[in-house]
Formats: sequence, C-alpha cells, structure tokens
Amino acid sequence: MSDALTNLMDRLLDGDRRALARMITLVESRAVDIATVMAKIYPHTGKGTILGFTGPPGAGKSTMVDKVTAAYRAQGKTVGIVAIDPSSPFSGGALLGDRIRMHRHFADTGVFIRSLSTRGSFGGLSRATRDVIRLMDAAGVDIVIVETVGVGQTELDIMEVAHTTTVILVPESGDVVQTMKAGLTEIADVFVVNKGDRAGADAIMRELTQMIELNPPSGWKIPVLKTQAVKNIGVEELVEKIDAHTAYYKETGEQKRIIKMTPEKEMIELLAVRMEDGYLREKASDGALAELCGKIASGETNPYEGAKAIAENPAWLTALFRIEN
Amino acid sequence: MSDALTNLMDRLLDGDRRALARMITLVESRAVDIATVMAKIYPHTGKGTILGFTGPPGAGKSTMVDKVTAAYRAQGKTVGIVAIDPSSPFSGGALLGDRIRMHRHFADTGVFIRSLSTRGSFGGLSRATRDVIRLMDAAGVDIVIVETVGVGQTELDIMEVAHTTTVILVPESGDVVQTMKAGLTEIADVFVVNKGDRAGADAIMRELTQMIELNPPSGWKIPVLKTQAVKNIGVEELVEKIDAHTAYYKETGEQKRIIKMTPEKEMIELLAVRMEDGYLREKASDGALAELCGKIASGETNPYEGAKAIAENPAWLTALFRIEN
Repeated sequence: MSDALTNLMDRLLDGDRRALARMITLVESRAVDIATVMAKIYPHTGKGTILGFTGPPGAGKSTMVDKVTAAYRAQGKTVGIVAIDPSSPFSGGALLGDRIRMHRHFADTGVFIRSLSTRGSFGGLSRATRDVIRLMDAAGVDIVIVETVGVGQTELDIMEVAHTTTVILVPESGDVVQTMKAGLTEIADVFVVNKGDRAGADAIMRELTQMIELNPPSGWKIPVLKTQAVKNIGVEELVEKIDAHTAYYKETGEQKRIIKMTPEKEMIELLAVRMEDGYLREKASDGALAELCGKIASGETNPYEGAKAIAENPAWLTALFRIEN
Repeated sequence: MSDALTNLMDRLLDGDRRALARMITLVESRAVDIATVMAKIYPHTGKGTILGFTGPPGAGKSTMVDKVTAAYRAQGKTVGIVAIDPSSPFSGGALLGDRIRMHRHFADTGVFIRSLSTRGSFGGLSRATRDVIRLMDAAGVDIVIVETVGVGQTELDIMEVAHTTTVILVPESGDVVQTMKAGLTEIADVFVVNKGDRAGADAIMRELTQMIELNPPSGWKIPVLKTQAVKNIGVEELVEKIDAHTAYYKETGEQKRIIKMTPEKEMIELLAVRMEDGYLREKASDGALAELCGKIASGETNPYEGAKAIAENPAWLTALFRIEN
C-alpha cells in the first residue's frame, strides 16, 4: 500500500469524515485493490449496529429513516446512512430525497450520508454496500442505516448484512403482501404500516399479524407497528423495537431463516470482481489472451467456449488474478 | 461428454420436449458442466423470438402472458414460458398461478412452461434464465416469453435478453411511475396499462405518454396501450405492437439505452460460476486450499485476506477452475 493510502486509512480509523468519504469513493470505484484495503479495515469492524429499511416505492422510507436518525442523534449516537439509489440502473443520478436530506443534516457532523448507485457485476450493489458499511463501522459510526427501495432479490441480498431489518408498508401495499406471503416474515424483524391514518391501515395490520401467526418464526416475535413518519407518530416505539431486536440478535446470534451471506460466498465474490478487473486489463494488453477477448467480443467465439479455454489455461488464470497496485 | 448426454442433446435439438425438460434440470442444477453443454447448444440458437413481460405485483402479468400465448398459438407458433418465481428467495415453492397455467396448457404440446426459482450467485437467476431461453430456442421453440415480477435490478438484468420488453402497469401503479421516472422508458419497448376499466387508467396513460415525450428514445416510439387481459381486450393490439417492435429490433439491431449483457460479461459470469463450484469441491478435499477454506468459514481468516491468498497462488487457481465432468 502506498504511503498516501496508509495515511488515509489511519485518518479514517481516527474517525475523520473526509478520509471516510474519500476511501468510500476509492473502494466503490475500484481505484484501489479492494481486498488489500478491506483486509486492513476488517479487524476494526463489528462495533457498529447495522439497520436495514426496505419496502415498496412510496412507503415513506426516507422520511422514516430521517426520523429514526434524529432519534438516535438525540441519544448522542453517530449515524451513517447508506441510501441505495433506485434510479441507478438507469440514469445513475442522485436521488432528490437524498439531496434534500443532505441539506437538512449538512450542519450535523454526527450524520454521514452516502448514496450508492453502482451498477456493478458480481454482487455489485450488495458487495459495495457491505464495503461501505464496514468503512463507516471502522470509522466509528455507531448506527449504520441501509435504505433500499423494493422487496426484490437485490434488496434481500443487501439486507443480509443488517442486524435488524424493518419492512415499511403502507395501506396500499396489499398486493405486495399477497405476492410475498410468508416470504416477508423471513426478511422482516419489524413491520411498519406507515401512513397509518389512511383507509385500510388496520386491514393490512391484521393481514400482517395473521401472516406472522401462520408462519411463526421461532424466538423473536415480529412486531407490527402503525406509524405516521411525517408527524413523528410511532417513531419512538419503532426505535424501541429495533433496539430490542438488535439486543436480541446480538445476545442469541439467532439468524432469520434466509441464508445469510457467508464469509466464503463473500470471498468468492471478491475473487470474481478481481477476475473481472483483470479481464479488462488483459484485454487491453497484447498476447493470446487479448486475442481471445477480441474473439469473444466480436462473437467469433461464444462465451461458453471462451470460458472453457480460459479455465483450462493456467497462465491466463494467473494473469487474470494478478494485482497491479 | 458422456454418450447419454450426447444422446439427450440430439433429442433436444430434434425438439423433444422431455429431453428439453431434462436438460434444463441438469443445467439449472449444475449437474453437468454448463460451459461444455451450452457451447454445443449455442450454435443452434438465435431462431426464436424472446419476449419479456415485467411489472409490479398484481398488474395481471400472468393473465396477460396467457392471453398472448393463446394468440401466438392461434398463429401456429410454439411458445415457451419462463416464469421467474418471485417467492424464490424465500420458500422456493412453485407459484399457484404457474400450477394453474400448467393445468390449462397441459394438453397443448405447443406450449412449454418452466418456472425458475434458483437463488444462485453470479448472475444467478439472470444467468439461469439465459441458459433456459437458449435451450428452448435450440429445441425449436418459436416464441420464448420471460415473465418476472417487479421492476428492480434483477428484473432489468433478466430483461436484457429480450428482443421486446413489455412493462405492464395498472392504474394503481402511480408510485412506481413516480419512482422510476425516465428509467421505465429505458426498459420498456411497449407500455401496457392493464385493468384499464379501473379509475385512474387514463391518468396513468397520460403520465406515461408525457414521460416518453420528455425522454424520447430515438427510433422506436414506445406505444402505451390500455388493456383488460381477463376480458381479452387489447391483447390483439398488444401482440401487433410486440411483433412490430421485434421486427424493428431485428431489422435495425437498435438497442435500448440500458447496457445489454455482452458476451464478455457473460463469459466472466460463467467463469465465476465455475470458480464457485470448484471452491465447494476443493473445500471437501484435502490439502492447503481446503485448510484455507476452513479458516475462512470459521472466521479465523477474513474474506479479503482469503481472496488475496488464493489470487496469488497459481496452483490453487488452477484447482478452482478444473472441470470434473
């Protein structure tokens, strides 16, 4: 590692916010070797609490995250927010909500906000999210909040890292509940029905409660809370339930039934990322491997033939995984 | 390749439905080496038309796919349906809708239905979907329909393979439209507002039309259609628009603005899958690599250190990518 990078890491571990921001950018853009940097960060992680917030669009997640952030700030805790940008697959632009939030917390050095919009391969967003969470954790952030939109595969992968996941629904989310059925109880540690003054709030609360009773998770009983985030109604109780679950999780180590990201899966992903970076580098060089890359790109050789050829060539494999920096 | 596998492939290429079903199972479960099998399948693909259908839960996609299937059957075309099971991350169970559909088309040998619920890594579902599409295509299926629930990252990855993607919304989907904004126009080739008799149908059609005008894609003008799938209203016009877009796409080769899956990305994914399979195999064997695997699993070595150690060891790399069958 270069002296500049070592210095940056030292400042990050001292809790320097600018160093944290800079390191996140370096890691997210793969401008440094992720494994090299993160191997040094890793031993300094594990102190922070990771909270996940997810739910369908329009459920009021950002507002709720704001209110929950304010509640933790009132307790004197520092908060990091990782907002997963739903517009990422398309425009790559920043969220309006994120900019508004940035503005609101601008003067508060106890809140660190970062939005992620990378559309990468190999665990892409979920891998980047893990790295950012760990960087915040190592920099001494007490509460790291991960906020995603949706209840699909990507969101589930991301939520694997959270100690406590809150699923926010609204009275209009009946279709979501119907489609996800028991599945929802397998990601949620806490359910919130936000915009609880709207018609149908009690109906969806009943539906969720019945769902939990039909598929009772062992141990932790998933609470169903009614809130109105914009009016700050129910937020205090939500924070209490989140803290109770986090304490429960940390005490029992009990995992939800979904398969959690294992260190081995994570290592394989890191290797895949390095292989991809290596591919792009080798493609730009000379030699037989670069020639094969050209044939794959042009369609002369199909991807399956290409994969076989590379897998069976030790020199090419070594070249793909070589580190440059 | 074994004689049995060669024989199975010959039957598949002859259009034998049972051979197709068997091969899909083998490839999906990775019971055969994917690259070896698919390298032989690949030259026989490219004849079929791939259609994508996506949209939020409750939009009536399954019903619409049924009606569109019936329309193509009436033209004498064979249809394959790949239903991406939204319950997959959780229960792994089959969709009720899928079972109903199976029953309805049971007697029709011109319709081949397969649901995918693999929760794999490395492109997981989107990679498996591509393989299944190609196997159907190579078996002579004229129209392959891929149906997913949601408009998130996973769905977008999957839709990258489609010649024509139809996004189905309902009058209640205002929140989705608001969240996705211009993004929706980057995946949709055709918009459908289903359940068009409900209040708000015209409002959402106006919204979509304005969205298209604000971000006009060059070339193809995205049509916005009002349908009632259950009553078969508007289905004929939808099929006409789909066919028109497919013809346009095949003629011009014009791609939507989202980045399409390239052969190179696909090859890297195949290599990652092989590496993962190799990891599981090597972990179960003896030797220094198995020892490292144990340390990663137990947490004694962190994933970043592990990735570095493997990347720098040519013998381990070769072992990870070795083929067994």
